[in-house]
Amino acid sequence: MSSIDKVLARIDANLDQSLQRLFDLLKIKSISTDPAFKAPCREAADWLAKELTGIGIEASVRDTAGHPMVVGHRKSGKPGPHVLFYGHYDVQPVDPLELWNRDPFDPVIETREDGSKIIIARGSADDKGQLMTFVEAARAYIEETGDLPVDVTILFEGEEESGSPSLHPFLEANKDELSCDLALVCDTGMWDAKTPAISVMLRGMVGDEIIVKAASRDLHSGMYGGSAQNPNHIVASIIAGLHDENGKITLPGFYDGVIEMPDDVKAMWDTLGFSVEDFLGDVGLKYPRGENDRTPLEHIWTRPTVEVNGMWGGYQGAGSKTVIPAEAHAKFTFRLVGDQDPDKIQDAFRAYVRSKIPADCSVEFIAKEGSPALRLDFAMPVLEKGKKALQDEWETEAALIGMGGSIPIVGDFKRMLGMDSLLIGFGLEDDQIHSPNEKYNLTSYHKGIRSWARVLKELAED
Amino acid sequence: MSSIDKVLARIDANLDQSLQRLFDLLKIKSISTDPAFKAPCREAADWLAKELTGIGIEASVRDTAGHPMVVGHRKSGKPGPHVLFYGHYDVQPVDPLELWNRDPFDPVIETREDGSKIIIARGSADDKGQLMTFVEAARAYIEETGDLPVDVTILFEGEEESGSPSLHPFLEANKDELSCDLALVCDTGMWDAKTPAISVMLRGMVGDEIIVKAASRDLHSGMYGGSAQNPNHIVASIIAGLHDENGKITLPGFYDGVIEMPDDVKAMWDTLGFSVEDFLGDVGLKYPRGENDRTPLEHIWTRPTVEVNGMWGGYQGAGSKTVIPAEAHAKFTFRLVGDQDPDKIQDAFRAYVRSKIPADCSVEFIAKEGSPALRLDFAMPVLEKGKKALQDEWETEAALIGMGGSIPIVGDFKRMLGMDSLLIGFGLEDDQIHSPNEKYNLTSYHKGIRSWARVLKELAED
Repeated sequence: MSSIDKVLARIDANLDQSLQRLFDLLKIKSISTDPAFKAPCREAADWLAKELTGIGIEASVRDTAGHPMVVGHRKSGKPGPHVLFYGHYDVQPVDPLELWNRDPFDPVIETREDGSKIIIARGSADDKGQLMTFVEAARAYIEETGDLPVDVTILFEGEEESGSPSLHPFLEANKDELSCDLALVCDTGMWDAKTPAISVMLRGMVGDEIIVKAASRDLHSGMYGGSAQNPNHIVASIIAGLHDENGKITLPGFYDGVIEMPDDVKAMWDTLGFSVEDFLGDVGLKYPRGENDRTPLEHIWTRPTVEVNGMWGGYQGAGSKTVIPAEAHAKFTFRLVGDQDPDKIQDAFRAYVRSKIPADCSVEFIAKEGSPALRLDFAMPVLEKGKKALQDEWETEAALIGMGGSIPIVGDFKRMLGMDSLLIGFGLEDDQIHSPNEKYNLTSYHKGIRSWARVLKELAED
Repeated sequence: MSSIDKVLARIDANLDQSLQRLFDLLKIKSISTDPAFKAPCREAADWLAKELTGIGIEASVRDTAGHPMVVGHRKSGKPGPHVLFYGHYDVQPVDPLELWNRDPFDPVIETREDGSKIIIARGSADDKGQLMTFVEAARAYIEETGDLPVDVTILFEGEEESGSPSLHPFLEANKDELSCDLALVCDTGMWDAKTPAISVMLRGMVGDEIIVKAASRDLHSGMYGGSAQNPNHIVASIIAGLHDENGKITLPGFYDGVIEMPDDVKAMWDTLGFSVEDFLGDVGLKYPRGENDRTPLEHIWTRPTVEVNGMWGGYQGAGSKTVIPAEAHAKFTFRLVGDQDPDKIQDAFRAYVRSKIPADCSVEFIAKEGSPALRLDFAMPVLEKGKKALQDEWETEAALIGMGGSIPIVGDFKRMLGMDSLLIGFGLEDDQIHSPNEKYNLTSYHKGIRSWARVLKELAED
């Protein structure tokens, strides 16, 4: 038995314990965006540092202005690239809680009708389950062979779901410690349950929240209705004016920097057999919205968007209340592609919003830090190593795909630390991340651990 | 001293006790629209029935499918019209609670900088303070003279702030008991703090709530953004499309039945010295919105409107959540004038909403029962009696005015019981009804009680 086969066999034999450790982490309510959950975020960081230390990776919890980072190191004493593995231990809020079938922080394994097993909990797929695939691969490697095949640095973040405000200062302050030859990032998905994937294009993001204010207090809609400004109407008109009748975004200069995919990339994607019916059907929809001269794969991989993630104003309780509210709110996120500039887009958005505010009203903005989109070089040599490891494990060629969501860390690694990132993850379309009843396939977890062991081995063979 | 002067002197002497009784009623949290406050609504009804019985008006609490009614009777044995007095004991919700300077249900009298005194509590002006002006006038009349000058029936409702669902069945079932010669309704305002008013035009109302649904669950806005329908966008576009660039409402047939005021009525209103600066300035605004070829007095008295009283969808918490919500909501109320038909307007609204729902989405409606607008006959003889009583008390001619808000009961009295209504109230523009820190001037309460004593006397002299 080769050493990698022994490592894989150990992973298989110890799966139950690997799951128990994941469950311990999933029980911690590390919701980073809500200040009420500050203590559980630190608890998750402490848990991870202890876990890493326990398997022989020298780790510590590092304070920031926000939630702490976890950093770990283990030298292999062997040639080959020094890799940095990145994941995040924070999770999304759980509301609407009433749509969960069970406590989001009481993980369980359920068997589905087809016999497959899933791990259900907030963070099971995004990103605790994913980051633990690497931790467990490292554990098996060290326990089986006494060492890791390459030098490894670990970086676990606790603010990925809330805009990563502490990340830039932390990378800047620890540039020497964290600069490696390559980053491994596990926060993405497979193409489908049988086809592994490496994500080579990520949309960027920039966000903004607006608060539109009119009268100095809530008004009676009978007494003032028709004559006083209604902030609900203004916010609605701002939202409604962002798209034209063809689904294009109307902000001046918005499409500056958007690039068309080369024909060969489009051709490769055509072979993936993307099914609009499955993609939308899975969530109860049929008809793609968005730019009507583009395919849904373009909508989510190569085209920029704006979505209103939240809006509210006035009375939301049972029954009716005849009120004109004093203020109304909306939260916007733009997904960016190509070379779109987050700052310019925020400027254009704010100019647009201000142009829609009547003389009597005011608007306040709450910014969310932006990050541009990212594309990896399709010819990057390390891609081939990743593809081989994944093909060995999954017995299917890995797809090189785009990603609709943002992983700003990848841009930061490139720009601040000069590192390319290999984006390998085992999430699936139906994992319901950010939604009630988030899950992670047991297969994703088990074969994810095995995949990382294989990737480490491939990287070492240089 | 004439008998009316004695009654007025007794009112003055007993003001402190009258206030104490009002405070007892204001302490009861009778929010009718929220099912959590069912018990306090009944408590308010019980309190009122006991109070009426105590002063010699035979009263009882009468069950309905919703909150109970209070009905009372007292025969005078004298000629003259039999009057029905109407008020409502339920109040608006108190949110946003954080904008109140004190507990909304802990009434207090405060002295303002100009020396005037105000009663602060939810319901102080709308409508507990107002209905108690009549109860206290009746008390003083009975205590001083041993009787009321006319036959009096009392009807106190507990669902005025939540669409009065039980009112029609109750009026229908008790038609004989409640049909009188004239209704006295105390739920309106003065023209200004020195000028009493009788409201002769009331806008009608019809409401609707929409729930727009798209995907079967909340979606990640990165993974699905640009391709999946976003209910926030759809609701926003529905709201935004309701008005054209001139402030006109776009629903087909919406203005059918809207009538222009006769020139002499407009001329009378011109003498009232309505100040846009004061009207809007009082609530921190300057510029009238609405149909841009109409005056603000027209906007609120004679023109129909639609206002979004509430809208919501997606994440509203601190920080950001990159979600496309599965559904979004909005609550609409239309104010109606002239002969506009609430049913036709609801039909037109629903047809419009359905036309804006993409193939993949659905909409549900939650109706609020409508009522058409109402105009009294300017030549109605009883108006003169009311004007005289008010002029005697306030030493200023009473204005005959329109009202932006709806008092559906007035239409119901007319259509179901064949009664005209004399709409006399003592609220002021700055009472902040439906808003935090609702107040009622002590002068409104004191001189309101005196005014009703004078009105009863005038009515008896027939």
